[in-house]
Amino acid sequence: MAQIPDNFLGLPEIHSTYDRARYAILPIPYDSTVSFQTGTRYGPRAIITASQQVELFDQEYEREFIKSGVATLPPVAPNMAGPASMHEDIFESARQVVRDGKFMIGLGGEHSISSGLVRAVQGKHKKLSVLQIDAHADLRDSYEDTPFSHASAMRRVMDLHVPVIGVGIRNYSAEEHKFMRARKISPISARDTREDIDWMQTAVDRLTENVYVSIDIDGFDPAYAPGTGTPEPGGLEWYQVCDLLKAVAMERRIVAADVVEVIPLPGNAQTEFLAAKLIYKLIAHVESNASSPRK
Amino acid sequence: MAQIPDNFLGLPEIHSTYDRARYAILPIPYDSTVSFQTGTRYGPRAIITASQQVELFDQEYEREFIKSGVATLPPVAPNMAGPASMHEDIFESARQVVRDGKFMIGLGGEHSISSGLVRAVQGKHKKLSVLQIDAHADLRDSYEDTPFSHASAMRRVMDLHVPVIGVGIRNYSAEEHKFMRARKISPISARDTREDIDWMQTAVDRLTENVYVSIDIDGFDPAYAPGTGTPEPGGLEWYQVCDLLKAVAMERRIVAADVVEVIPLPGNAQTEFLAAKLIYKLIAHVESNASSPRK
Amino acid sequence: MAQIPDNFLGLPEIHSTYDRARYAILPIPYDSTVSFQTGTRYGPRAIITASQQVELFDQEYEREFIKSGVATLPPVAPNMAGPASMHEDIFESARQVVRDGKFMIGLGGEHSISSGLVRAVQGKHKKLSVLQIDAHADLRDSYEDTPFSHASAMRRVMDLHVPVIGVGIRNYSAEEHKFMRARKISPISARDTREDIDWMQTAVDRLTENVYVSIDIDGFDPAYAPGTGTPEPGGLEWYQVCDLLKAVAMERRIVAADVVEVIPLPGNAQTEFLAAKLIYKLIAHVESNASSPRK
Amino acid sequence: MAQIPDNFLGLPEIHSTYDRARYAILPIPYDSTVSFQTGTRYGPRAIITASQQVELFDQEYEREFIKSGVATLPPVAPNMAGPASMHEDIFESARQVVRDGKFMIGLGGEHSISSGLVRAVQGKHKKLSVLQIDAHADLRDSYEDTPFSHASAMRRVMDLHVPVIGVGIRNYSAEEHKFMRARKISPISARDTREDIDWMQTAVDRLTENVYVSIDIDGFDPAYAPGTGTPEPGGLEWYQVCDLLKAVAMERRIVAADVVEVIPLPGNAQTEFLAAKLIYKLIAHVESNASSPRK
Amino acid sequence: MAQIPDNFLGLPEIHSTYDRARYAILPIPYDSTVSFQTGTRYGPRAIITASQQVELFDQEYEREFIKSGVATLPPVAPNMAGPASMHEDIFESARQVVRDGKFMIGLGGEHSISSGLVRAVQGKHKKLSVLQIDAHADLRDSYEDTPFSHASAMRRVMDLHVPVIGVGIRNYSAEEHKFMRARKISPISARDTREDIDWMQTAVDRLTENVYVSIDIDGFDPAYAPGTGTPEPGGLEWYQVCDLLKAVAMERRIVAADVVEVIPLPGNAQTEFLAAKLIYKLIAHVESNASSPRK
Amino acid sequence: MAQIPDNFLGLPEIHSTYDRARYAILPIPYDSTVSFQTGTRYGPRAIITASQQVELFDQEYEREFIKSGVATLPPVAPNMAGPASMHEDIFESARQVVRDGKFMIGLGGEHSISSGLVRAVQGKHKKLSVLQIDAHADLRDSYEDTPFSHASAMRRVMDLHVPVIGVGIRNYSAEEHKFMRARKISPISARDTREDIDWMQTAVDRLTENVYVSIDIDGFDPAYAPGTGTPEPGGLEWYQVCDLLKAVAMERRIVAADVVEVIPLPGNAQTEFLAAKLIYKLIAHVESNASSPRK
Repeated sequence: MAQIPDNFLGLPEIHSTYDRARYAILPIPYDSTVSFQTGTRYGPRAIITASQQVELFDQEYEREFIKSGVATLPPVAPNMAGPASMHEDIFESARQVVRDGKFMIGLGGEHSISSGLVRAVQGKHKKLSVLQIDAHADLRDSYEDTPFSHASAMRRVMDLHVPVIGVGIRNYSAEEHKFMRARKISPISARDTREDIDWMQTAVDRLTENVYVSIDIDGFDPAYAPGTGTPEPGGLEWYQVCDLLKAVAMERRIVAADVVEVIPLPGNAQTEFLAAKLIYKLIAHVESNASSPRK
Repeated sequence: MAQIPDNFLGLPEIHSTYDRARYAILPIPYDSTVSFQTGTRYGPRAIITASQQVELFDQEYEREFIKSGVATLPPVAPNMAGPASMHEDIFESARQVVRDGKFMIGLGGEHSISSGLVRAVQGKHKKLSVLQIDAHADLRDSYEDTPFSHASAMRRVMDLHVPVIGVGIRNYSAEEHKFMRARKISPISARDTREDIDWMQTAVDRLTENVYVSIDIDGFDPAYAPGTGTPEPGGLEWYQVCDLLKAVAMERRIVAADVVEVIPLPGNAQTEFLAAKLIYKLIAHVESNASSPRK
Repeated sequence: MAQIPDNFLGLPEIHSTYDRARYAILPIPYDSTVSFQTGTRYGPRAIITASQQVELFDQEYEREFIKSGVATLPPVAPNMAGPASMHEDIFESARQVVRDGKFMIGLGGEHSISSGLVRAVQGKHKKLSVLQIDAHADLRDSYEDTPFSHASAMRRVMDLHVPVIGVGIRNYSAEEHKFMRARKISPISARDTREDIDWMQTAVDRLTENVYVSIDIDGFDPAYAPGTGTPEPGGLEWYQVCDLLKAVAMERRIVAADVVEVIPLPGNAQTEFLAAKLIYKLIAHVESNASSPRK
Repeated sequence: MAQIPDNFLGLPEIHSTYDRARYAILPIPYDSTVSFQTGTRYGPRAIITASQQVELFDQEYEREFIKSGVATLPPVAPNMAGPASMHEDIFESARQVVRDGKFMIGLGGEHSISSGLVRAVQGKHKKLSVLQIDAHADLRDSYEDTPFSHASAMRRVMDLHVPVIGVGIRNYSAEEHKFMRARKISPISARDTREDIDWMQTAVDRLTENVYVSIDIDGFDPAYAPGTGTPEPGGLEWYQVCDLLKAVAMERRIVAADVVEVIPLPGNAQTEFLAAKLIYKLIAHVESNASSPRK
Repeated sequence: MAQIPDNFLGLPEIHSTYDRARYAILPIPYDSTVSFQTGTRYGPRAIITASQQVELFDQEYEREFIKSGVATLPPVAPNMAGPASMHEDIFESARQVVRDGKFMIGLGGEHSISSGLVRAVQGKHKKLSVLQIDAHADLRDSYEDTPFSHASAMRRVMDLHVPVIGVGIRNYSAEEHKFMRARKISPISARDTREDIDWMQTAVDRLTENVYVSIDIDGFDPAYAPGTGTPEPGGLEWYQVCDLLKAVAMERRIVAADVVEVIPLPGNAQTEFLAAKLIYKLIAHVESNASSPRK
Repeated sequence: MAQIPDNFLGLPEIHSTYDRARYAILPIPYDSTVSFQTGTRYGPRAIITASQQVELFDQEYEREFIKSGVATLPPVAPNMAGPASMHEDIFESARQVVRDGKFMIGLGGEHSISSGLVRAVQGKHKKLSVLQIDAHADLRDSYEDTPFSHASAMRRVMDLHVPVIGVGIRNYSAEEHKFMRARKISPISARDTREDIDWMQTAVDRLTENVYVSIDIDGFDPAYAPGTGTPEPGGLEWYQVCDLLKAVAMERRIVAADVVEVIPLPGNAQTEFLAAKLIYKLIAHVESNASSPRK
């Protein structure tokens, strides 16, 4: 009686048991501070379902990358007391995963989940920076009465003294602009990736030794990832992001990641499929560069 | 240049100016504690749009009911700090409307908004009870880490010492059952409305002089209102609810109301249309019985 | 190489050739005067597709009813010069069908198409009245700058001195109310069909010898036919309409019909399936009573 | 870290472990012979997700029914070699479950899965009959080149010499009519349930000592279960089916069941929610009548 | 009580009052001559809702552009007497806006609305030409019995002796080809924008001193704007259109604009979001080049 | 009474009669072996409807291409006995079309239909090779218990000793990789088309004299064709495929084709429109190069 196991990549027990797995998928179906279109709570489930169609054989490296094991954790339950409480719950869940020595991959849910995850990773990995792939700067001090909004996701990370290097950014407020000026932050905009031939190296150079990769799916152009809350035109392409992840994996050490803001569309699995395949590519790049020399 | 004003019922300025209106529609597009299907935030906008197709001539009373005026307020902005903060914001918004002497009609959003509204109404109208049309008891002490969840909506109302008379209830937990037993509460179940010929009078008799009507759209059978988060089979029919509201309007004084938990479905305006027409029927009943003797 | 012919009921050539068929389906995918939700233009195609799943064996009469033949005509092309021009085009198309001696069944499209069809039928069948199954009276003198709007469909029929007997009506304007008073018209409301045990006989009695049946799908409760532009709660049920059509077929002579205002919903074929089966039931009733004595 | 387990009813391990559970949910996401609308393959997943919102406290019996345990098995993998091969796979999977002494509940998928399930149950329970709740007779000898089509589901059961008592039937072919005549089978039609006051007792009386309940969701009226392939108007209501199941549970011994033909609609969880709650009601009835005397 | 005003960009009263505003958004939800997919009537509402998520800070110019004021007018009511009447209504509405000295931005609705708008603008701005971004030439003499069809939008403009410069054109009829030959018109095709390095300058050079920008959203590739009636593959990209608008704003004087043919898709706000942001970019370009020297 | 004929391109009888037509469209709405998302059975109908909006005038060649005639055949009925039986039915249907001397264009349905079509074409055209535009290699020996799965489509073609040249391939299994190695097959990957300037000529060079073009719509990037079962990111663009088809038409003889794996999305006709236009472009290229010298 053949069956596809209902976990990330549809892996058999031998490759998906938590104890033996190097990678741990942590679903966080939380979307309570979202301001416009809702539904990222359905993202983790959709990404996991789509991942079961991702081919395990990687065409680029000409091999499979599941021997290290990829475990899928049960979802973190929403804490409805508010985003500050939820931040703590996420932090606690993530801390355990990091302590267990796993390469943690958070699945959102909205982008506000990232700060709890980064805080947990920072506890283990020093010299940490965040590679943020995103349409928005997410650097507001607070938004709609809370400092833990999706619109403040990276501001909360910076509060932890973790540098953030944004790529694909094409939407921020006057307040955020002023903040970036003051902090001398200049993200690599989506237009930069088309007009500045060195954008990829620039991004890599700014990263520290250990890198947390935070992928807001709206960093991609809506043509490639229409299933998201605020689909900003003029975004990144598939190969740009793949190649950037590869470059980072080769020159730095990626230690954790998240993929957030996926909203499944009725009948169109394009966005969650892209998210699932991107995560597998990330694993492939990390695995392939595990023993390479770094910065 | 003919134009349909974009307010509830599409009324011209003369019938929709706040200062002169007896009725005030208060949209509250809040859905942050919802646990299953999300999207009630889109409810108020959809109900207002649908209401513009509701005929102003009432077939039952053979006249229009807009001379008293129906104003549509701007939506209460979501407070993302958590449901406790949102409860306060709703209370403050509603208190102003009640102080201005309006018959307030809240449009949800999720059911948790009701306790803030009732609290505001209670400040003005003594001997207040709530007629709750709902599939669920909503009497949990707390749910998913907050006492202000949609699943605790009526428990919070009872905390205000306002009696709650439920109609259409067909889903509650063992904990809620125990609580109802202890408080000697026995809601009128959906099955009662089919098997007990006196159900309507029983409901009316339990209500106090002043009545707040809280309509969770899932009180209706999903056949009539499929656009909602937890569509419980076996619910109420259109004419049952209309006739109940008429009976209450005739024998008690309805002083405020809300309609909550509407989620617009793609392409199917059935639920929001029913909600809009139900509100107009409620206004018609209230207007027609304004000078009748009461209990 | 088995194939389902792409016509109404999926009939083989022998039963669907125009020349030999008694019944002729005339699709009119026109929706240019619709004021709220658009999409009835997709109705005819959806009804035809759904009809191919309708069982040809009728359980009530225990036999099939296709030997008389049911031809499916090509759709009447939309005339975009405006509804007055379209009315003429429909009239011309229908006149030919009626002249050919067919029992014409128009598939809308919006309700405004009916007046052109009735006008064509009136040219052949004297003592004609219209049985209108509908949520709305459709008796406005004009609407949105045209007398040929869907909201004036039955007013235009009355201009032809053809009496209209409405059933299921539950929405009309003060102007229409006044008009009905003046003309001493009192439609059988949806509530009447629940509270007046004689409603069906009353409807039949008011009809003249020859009857044109015009079914606006919103005459049904939205629970049964959610795919329509203005889904009015409190409507008719399946068996009510079936039994009414049977009674009319037994006591009068039905000479033509239309089914209008079907909007296919994404993924939900319920409404068009009901429409298709209803048309087949109508044919069954007409065929079974072909030789019965009448008024 | 609170989590809702991703199984039927969202039960904790203690109540969902296969070894200790009395009930076993067997998902069969198979829809390869469906002729009109496809998508029942998504049914099992949708029913399981919806079931996690079903309240475990039963209002009718005033208690919970999970102590006997309800295990959710992994889905039976589709066998794409054709429906004959799939029938064998289903039979093998089901036989194991039945041998393990479980009360098996199959989740379709299309109705063709039932014959494999019944065949497995028949191996253990003698004096078996099938209560078929359905819009269609499903008694064709073969359909679209295979005897294992959904349209032949109950014909295959009858081949096993298991009597089939249909309820809600309102669509069959001339061929099926002839077959029923020859076999002296007369299903209880949907109309019978409205016009014959004894329909329920008639159905129970025809059943043998042990009963397999096969619920094609299209037995319900599309108003209650719009998410299905061929939504036949004029079907059963929620309370009718609940009361019938209760009567059967009281007077016979229900030994297994299936719920099939659910197609999740975009944004509308009504159908899968009804299916999930119906299964829980079935369990409640079976548990409550476990020690009652029978025929 | 914080609230987002329900106008274009969600601007506070000070920046959105008609009297003080330089820009005026004129919604025209009209789609009665559309021949294939309907629904552009929902475009204006969707664009306005989406615009409330557009960041007011422009990354390119590093400042906000709302001080000049952007007023949102109520929608022009559909005139159902036919497209000729509607043309007059649009003209009258637009003439008033132009007379009031506003920079008018029409929101469609179908493309047929442009001729009425251009006619109004021509009354004030001499030396006017139209920059048409579109997949189709829209140069038919008449279509489906009316000269005011969407398929004749630019032909009607040319009747006004206003030159039309098309960009992105990739679909026209033999008749239109002949007409263009005769008039020596050669639009810049979508392929030209990929293969001819000078396409942008060519377009600018052909424009006269004052420019009306008419953007049919299907000028974009469907990858970027899938929500439209006839999604022609091979279209323009986001940055191409932005850069073209900038070039025109720098070298000519843009005096009015429209964005048409947006159909909101279920759950996917990509197209209306692009439209909203494009309009804001247009305003930014116009504002930034207000005092620059021109041709 | 103007009417659009309901065939591919909406052609009048003179250009669509089978006997006189050079091209024959063969719809095959079959999707029984699909493993993930279902619904390609709706593809042929959607492509035909969309094709009626494709302009007959080709901008590239500046002429129409319908004089040779394009007939639309009725759909091949699904054979539900399993994919092996269906393969035979398709082969028989196709053989007749090929024998009649038609240029056959199959419309899927799933990709498994191609092997039956190629087998029929091979019977007439020697020196045949297949140009496969696809995201997946489709070279599995068998899948989910059948050798006739969509995942084995091209393996079955290779069994016929027909060489397959894949373009756009970006997903295959370790087993397929090994098979390709053994057979010395190296498809042109999607990345190759971006990084290898000679990819197009390489593809053409590998083709034999007679070419069957098999287009799995997922060969395109999901940005251009989101309506498909497994939307693999990183695919081909519109102009790449058009230019490749032109090159093949110029240097080889295209003798038949198919377009498969289109799933219509709710409300979004982008994918079927692209498919329809692509087929017309293919016809244009074939017609224009009919008399050119070849290899």
